[in-house]
Amino acid sequence: MSARSDVARLIVSCPDRHGIVAAVAGCLADAGANIITSDQHSTNPEGGTFFLRMEFHLDGFAERRAALEARIAALAEEFELRWRLASAAVRQRVALFVSRYDHCLLELLWRWRRGELEMDVVGVVSNHPDLRGEVERFDVPYHVVPVRPETKAEAERQELELLAGRVDLVVLARYMQVLSGEFLERVGAPVINIHHSFLPAFGGAEPYRRAYERGVKLIGATAHYATEELDAGPIIEQDVARVSHRLDPTMLARIGGEIERAVLARAIAWHLEDRVIVHGNRTIVF
Amino acid sequence: MSARSDVARLIVSCPDRHGIVAAVAGCLADAGANIITSDQHSTNPEGGTFFLRMEFHLDGFAERRAALEARIAALAEEFELRWRLASAAVRQRVALFVSRYDHCLLELLWRWRRGELEMDVVGVVSNHPDLRGEVERFDVPYHVVPVRPETKAEAERQELELLAGRVDLVVLARYMQVLSGEFLERVGAPVINIHHSFLPAFGGAEPYRRAYERGVKLIGATAHYATEELDAGPIIEQDVARVSHRLDPTMLARIGGEIERAVLARAIAWHLEDRVIVHGNRTIVF
Amino acid sequence: MSARSDVARLIVSCPDRHGIVAAVAGCLADAGANIITSDQHSTNPEGGTFFLRMEFHLDGFAERRAALEARIAALAEEFELRWRLASAAVRQRVALFVSRYDHCLLELLWRWRRGELEMDVVGVVSNHPDLRGEVERFDVPYHVVPVRPETKAEAERQELELLAGRVDLVVLARYMQVLSGEFLERVGAPVINIHHSFLPAFGGAEPYRRAYERGVKLIGATAHYATEELDAGPIIEQDVARVSHRLDPTMLARIGGEIERAVLARAIAWHLEDRVIVHGNRTIVF
Amino acid sequence: MSARSDVARLIVSCPDRHGIVAAVAGCLADAGANIITSDQHSTNPEGGTFFLRMEFHLDGFAERRAALEARIAALAEEFELRWRLASAAVRQRVALFVSRYDHCLLELLWRWRRGELEMDVVGVVSNHPDLRGEVERFDVPYHVVPVRPETKAEAERQELELLAGRVDLVVLARYMQVLSGEFLERVGAPVINIHHSFLPAFGGAEPYRRAYERGVKLIGATAHYATEELDAGPIIEQDVARVSHRLDPTMLARIGGEIERAVLARAIAWHLEDRVIVHGNRTIVF
Repeated sequence: MSARSDVARLIVSCPDRHGIVAAVAGCLADAGANIITSDQHSTNPEGGTFFLRMEFHLDGFAERRAALEARIAALAEEFELRWRLASAAVRQRVALFVSRYDHCLLELLWRWRRGELEMDVVGVVSNHPDLRGEVERFDVPYHVVPVRPETKAEAERQELELLAGRVDLVVLARYMQVLSGEFLERVGAPVINIHHSFLPAFGGAEPYRRAYERGVKLIGATAHYATEELDAGPIIEQDVARVSHRLDPTMLARIGGEIERAVLARAIAWHLEDRVIVHGNRTIVF
Repeated sequence: MSARSDVARLIVSCPDRHGIVAAVAGCLADAGANIITSDQHSTNPEGGTFFLRMEFHLDGFAERRAALEARIAALAEEFELRWRLASAAVRQRVALFVSRYDHCLLELLWRWRRGELEMDVVGVVSNHPDLRGEVERFDVPYHVVPVRPETKAEAERQELELLAGRVDLVVLARYMQVLSGEFLERVGAPVINIHHSFLPAFGGAEPYRRAYERGVKLIGATAHYATEELDAGPIIEQDVARVSHRLDPTMLARIGGEIERAVLARAIAWHLEDRVIVHGNRTIVF
Repeated sequence: MSARSDVARLIVSCPDRHGIVAAVAGCLADAGANIITSDQHSTNPEGGTFFLRMEFHLDGFAERRAALEARIAALAEEFELRWRLASAAVRQRVALFVSRYDHCLLELLWRWRRGELEMDVVGVVSNHPDLRGEVERFDVPYHVVPVRPETKAEAERQELELLAGRVDLVVLARYMQVLSGEFLERVGAPVINIHHSFLPAFGGAEPYRRAYERGVKLIGATAHYATEELDAGPIIEQDVARVSHRLDPTMLARIGGEIERAVLARAIAWHLEDRVIVHGNRTIVF
Repeated sequence: MSARSDVARLIVSCPDRHGIVAAVAGCLADAGANIITSDQHSTNPEGGTFFLRMEFHLDGFAERRAALEARIAALAEEFELRWRLASAAVRQRVALFVSRYDHCLLELLWRWRRGELEMDVVGVVSNHPDLRGEVERFDVPYHVVPVRPETKAEAERQELELLAGRVDLVVLARYMQVLSGEFLERVGAPVINIHHSFLPAFGGAEPYRRAYERGVKLIGATAHYATEELDAGPIIEQDVARVSHRLDPTMLARIGGEIERAVLARAIAWHLEDRVIVHGNRTIVF
């Protein structure tokens, strides 16, 4: 099989028009690349937006990257492309935020250690000291930044200092603090949150208790990009499990925890493979 | 196997306390009944409400029913039971309401004809003439009661006249009119509605369009008892299907239609078997 | 939106090598086509087989089809392509085979009437007269060809006479007779069967009874292309439902029936949209 | 809420006949117990076998246990009951067997530490040293018993020595050795195995590779009691996930691993709560 360092992904979006696929595929072929997978989507063939993700193999990608980028840049002008090129060999740097529940955090660390999540975990940030021991077993630094209402601004400042320029992705793995719009803007990386309900149902606090009270027969979890508006950002992945009248809120939370960790792990894996494209408040997941 | 006419169900609710199961089971045993299935639930063993459903076989049930009821009545006094006895052989009389979408209606008629829904369909009521041909093929009367905003009260009066005293259950199989609180009170039978979203998300109009716009990754349907507050009644059953960015609202509606018919059919089957008990705004489904 | 008659699909398979996507996309672009969706798969980028399905829009496809085919043929020589071009406007002619169970047959006829299956149903063939009334309501001819062990060869001869040259697809919608290898060869069209188990478990007769006896906690159904070896052909789609010890074989069959009709309907929809490619004993489903 | 030490479960099986529920419920009520949940099943109301599980609360259960057992024993004579009484407060002693794959083992240890599995893990037995570090972090002893074809009998002898009289349950959490019938007989405790396919499909070795080759669209896992016949024992729980042609055997194994750990964890939780009753080669799961 080909070396991972010779595999890369080109992500493109542009106004939909005739000839784009041929032009991009031709550009890659002319550069010597072999397309491994290709996915595309158009919001509307007439006047809509077109999205394309091509994963390709190119011998000696690192050395030939600049030349390839020049080709794409020329094409970009003609077709008004917005584009991004990512090497499959370059791992994204990820910070994990957590409060006290360990299930999502451990699921991610565990999959990471087993090689199922291609990322570098640069550290865990928590407003509680509880999970230090667990995290340090994975040789990952654990930073405690306590948050109280009156110190929140200062806490975010500290967090930004820890992260700024050092991360490509922030994951809120059951971090029970709301991040400010200013933080989201200044952190300079996308932020993925796991919410413990099938949004838009039960946004906000205590979703399992509210699900119990409403008597739903399914509970769920939602991984989404965090935006300033709480629990309203673009959804990446969701899943549900059946529940019954027999289960109280505590049992719902236990069952829900399993959905949360599966949904968050899938969302992050897809994000790291450059499969998720945000378009307005929706996502395209290739 | 035993004759269906000798099978009956006893549904009981009461304040939870010591000895109820033994007392009810003893009462049935003393009457000569053999318990086939038994389900129970307590909202809280200390001071909560207790629910019990026993399906039993009793030779010559019809003749011995009065004697059994006398026994239960005596017990009811002691344990503050609310109770109901239903013969498995007595089919509930059901009216189906529909507008123009045929999928839920046909699913129910079809299962009914195949013997999968133990009910008597006394008629279909619609605000449109479109589905008359389909319905009459099943030898079921089709009543058109047009509804316009200014004639709604009169339309409901007509519907009540058609139904009053003649039905044990009303099913809204994609009936696109909101029934008034007065109608629900006067019809004298429970009303089951199918809503085309996983409530409480997307209550109200056009849930598939709104699901598309919110970018959810699951769409669903919910069968619930209709109450005066729209889409807020006790949920009987829900289910979902995975969807992706590739699907527009029309395709969501098509996929959703399959969930709607399955969910509604299950909810009605359970209701007809006396498996569903309403407790506040929640249901116990045995 | 574009006229359906201007939409077509190109299905390609070939030895995997550099430049195929660019060549095919370029060929379509040069012909004036706009690619709507594109899916590709390689069994192995080094020396494997490559599969491609492109759905595209081409103004005046009917008139320009010959010219496009000439372009593709030229390309085919260079890349050793096996290819097929299908207009989205040309409906496949489908014959449905059934014995006595009506659920799969009615599901297909119903979806067909609602416009969810793009096909022409040319007739229903059955070894029993039971479902004639149901089928003729859909204005579809119903042919009874009784089959007894000693008349099977003659029955197949009759069926071939009914079908030969008149169908693009044969669907066995719970047809309880095994078709001979000779029939499958001579009918000149793919044959899709629904088997009432999650193959390869419980191939052969009475799968629900055997599932009950084995005590499985899931039952399922499998849609597959029929081949000479019973229940061993390429699988198109499968699904399952949870079951419990409470359910006897009759109830398993009822629940299974719902899976059967959903699975068969999906498999046929995908086949009709040219999404299913057979490769050895496996399928690629785009 | 009531103290856990005052909660117990009575599991009963007997020839089905009139009055059993009343007799058992009466016996518990007379002893002062309050029934919390009750589940029953009859393989056939006429001449079949009847199964009952009642969970109840009895103040001072430990002191009153002997008296209760005497009552039940009297009843047992009359109704030919086979019965078992288990305190919810007495944790079963469990040994975990593993080879090199860590996912099932860690899932169990993790849930155990979070309080989701009510058991005492008395030790891990492995034919490889690889997972010692992981296991010892949980303060659980790790015993390496290497197995080679020629030393298998001796290895089993060693394992029996480690376990005999010290365990109530043995769990094979991806233990890649076949245990002999003699071992299963002498270990004196039920053995639960996780098999990485939806049995009875793909019993035996390399199920993911064979699933890939057969082209199934679902892969699964099965938790079952181990019996002398490989992968043929009573099934406790199964689940599946959808897969496609895009996934090679390695990816199938990764996805399957998630099903394995969920299925095994559920099966063990149910077993520990005395919810699983073996009847012939099937299980009743209350």
